[in-house]
Amino acid sequence: MAGIGVVQTQKYTFAHPPDHFLLESGKRLGPITVAYETYGELNSTGDNVILICHALTGDAHVAGLKRPDDRVPGWWDEMIGPDRVFDTNRYLVVCSNVLGGCYGTTGPSSLDPATGSPYGMRFPVVTIRDMVNVQYRLLQYLGVRRLKLVVGGSMGGMQVLEWAISYPDFMEAVIPIATSGRLSAQGIAYNQTQRLAIMQDPLWNNGDYPLGGGPGKGLSLARMIGTITYKSDQSWTKKFGRTFSSHDPRDIFEFDQCFEVENYLHYQGRKLVDRFDANTYLYLTKAMDLHDVGRNRSSYEEALAQIRCRVLSIGITSDFLYPTHWQKELVQILRRAGRNARYAEIESPYGHDAFLIEFRQMADIMERFLQE
Amino acid sequence: MAGIGVVQTQKYTFAHPPDHFLLESGKRLGPITVAYETYGELNSTGDNVILICHALTGDAHVAGLKRPDDRVPGWWDEMIGPDRVFDTNRYLVVCSNVLGGCYGTTGPSSLDPATGSPYGMRFPVVTIRDMVNVQYRLLQYLGVRRLKLVVGGSMGGMQVLEWAISYPDFMEAVIPIATSGRLSAQGIAYNQTQRLAIMQDPLWNNGDYPLGGGPGKGLSLARMIGTITYKSDQSWTKKFGRTFSSHDPRDIFEFDQCFEVENYLHYQGRKLVDRFDANTYLYLTKAMDLHDVGRNRSSYEEALAQIRCRVLSIGITSDFLYPTHWQKELVQILRRAGRNARYAEIESPYGHDAFLIEFRQMADIMERFLQE
Repeated sequence: MAGIGVVQTQKYTFAHPPDHFLLESGKRLGPITVAYETYGELNSTGDNVILICHALTGDAHVAGLKRPDDRVPGWWDEMIGPDRVFDTNRYLVVCSNVLGGCYGTTGPSSLDPATGSPYGMRFPVVTIRDMVNVQYRLLQYLGVRRLKLVVGGSMGGMQVLEWAISYPDFMEAVIPIATSGRLSAQGIAYNQTQRLAIMQDPLWNNGDYPLGGGPGKGLSLARMIGTITYKSDQSWTKKFGRTFSSHDPRDIFEFDQCFEVENYLHYQGRKLVDRFDANTYLYLTKAMDLHDVGRNRSSYEEALAQIRCRVLSIGITSDFLYPTHWQKELVQILRRAGRNARYAEIESPYGHDAFLIEFRQMADIMERFLQE
Repeated sequence: MAGIGVVQTQKYTFAHPPDHFLLESGKRLGPITVAYETYGELNSTGDNVILICHALTGDAHVAGLKRPDDRVPGWWDEMIGPDRVFDTNRYLVVCSNVLGGCYGTTGPSSLDPATGSPYGMRFPVVTIRDMVNVQYRLLQYLGVRRLKLVVGGSMGGMQVLEWAISYPDFMEAVIPIATSGRLSAQGIAYNQTQRLAIMQDPLWNNGDYPLGGGPGKGLSLARMIGTITYKSDQSWTKKFGRTFSSHDPRDIFEFDQCFEVENYLHYQGRKLVDRFDANTYLYLTKAMDLHDVGRNRSSYEEALAQIRCRVLSIGITSDFLYPTHWQKELVQILRRAGRNARYAEIESPYGHDAFLIEFRQMADIMERFLQE
């Protein structure tokens, strides 16, 4: 099966002052630029669209290559293309970088038109709902009348649930993966330690640092903490066990020598520093902390009951960051409210990250769901 | 049932140069002071002794009060005293601060006699085996001929297993709790992020900081990360859920406002900074990383097979830092080698910390085991 080839990230700008975009907080922001990619063609009725929502450090580049010689395609490439699950012969697939992001959509690293400098910590707090409302504006611009499906994992799954509640008549189905309708206390706790790692780096400087510079050590540590939570005890043991970096047995007793798992985490940390903005990491983890579909909607259960479309909630057996009971609970609440909801499980040792790894299982589960 | 009243921490110093203590690394250290407490009386045959081993930030003060007006007794007080599980009418109970610690035993915060300044990062890397060998020297000094039991959780459990292998004829039974014969890759990973949090604090200054000063923010963050891993998703949800600190709903959208779970973690971080030394945290987590009973003993399985005494390996259902399969595996390996070993489980939502909480369950399990 062929992929979708070379794609271009595109941009759409709206909310030019004085027509600011109204945030959930009541604050106003504008103009807002949204970076997005599309694969496939919109049909004449504007209703053959699949919207994909990305996770914390993801971007709009969900499939295909940016340049012909790219070795790594978009982050969910295996799911998208002619005759793949999200079949670009039939569907228009859309993914955009979230509001608050650093991959082309307006966020803390964007220039504040009022000052000509990056927003930094002057950027307003944004929420998952704000992200979804921005995506809605993009879809209107693209001429989309109705969605076949909204799908995403982790922070992407949070957007999926907000979509189904905020725009209940706008889609046929949603697939939230490895997520919850409200972030758990444990999830908040992990996010907080990651933010602190950044904010305690002197180069953070209250968020005022040159673009491309900034708190590299802090961001790297944040990513290292996060990375541990995205895997599982079992997968760490299988991949690294207790393999030591140095082959000289005397090095074991040197304080600055380390295990391979430590080297791997440092590598993951450095990789993120090369591609991500520290303030953005602060704002997006904050948006995750604030994620609670029940906020200002009388209750969590009643918020979920506003969903009208079919729901497939997917959990991952080894995910301890978003344990499966959260995804099962979603389905229980929806069914009690008489909604069409079911639960499916990815059997995997890879932990939370499995939604970026177990493509075959996900494809099987989703294909059955989409064909019904 | 009465507790054991007011106790005094005592000290024993040995390995005066040139009779240095030989570390597993081959390096030499001396003199070494050990801080310890005892409860109960040694019998005439010197064989009624229970040795308790403490965890990462624990100390020798395992039971009783330091001053008559102390409100909080030692960290395992409920287990120790007349007619308690570790019955001081029958047993002499001993606990000492580990080598490398900061509660009276020689460690990185001790003064290096060669320089008159704290050792800091000039302190040699110490291992769980070194800790056990130091404890053996203390017991010899106290006239102990044989141990009834060695017991401890987490890093304490690591010492318990090293005890049973290094001195197989010196005890009747051991109870390792919520631990493993070798730290997992995930465990190493978490420890590494905690060390980095300290070492990336500018006040760490390569370990040279004034006693009582130093990298408070880094140590606090390290403790916050650790604290998350000592609990469980379930217990965080039950204790804090998504309760927000401020009662003003507008504060939710302020970046610097936070959830109660975040306040709690900060509180735990600050509390540790007030009572613990940052370099000590580095050395003790390093000792945990290096914990592998198989090192230089041909294999993990053969090392465990050297155990001769009865073994009760205890796991905690909700512990994701030391999942129960590690404790079950210990028993499987021991039984395959023909040893007298069994597994018991603490059913608890409190995660790894349950060995400091679920006293009734532990008492029941241990009492049955001791009476056999």
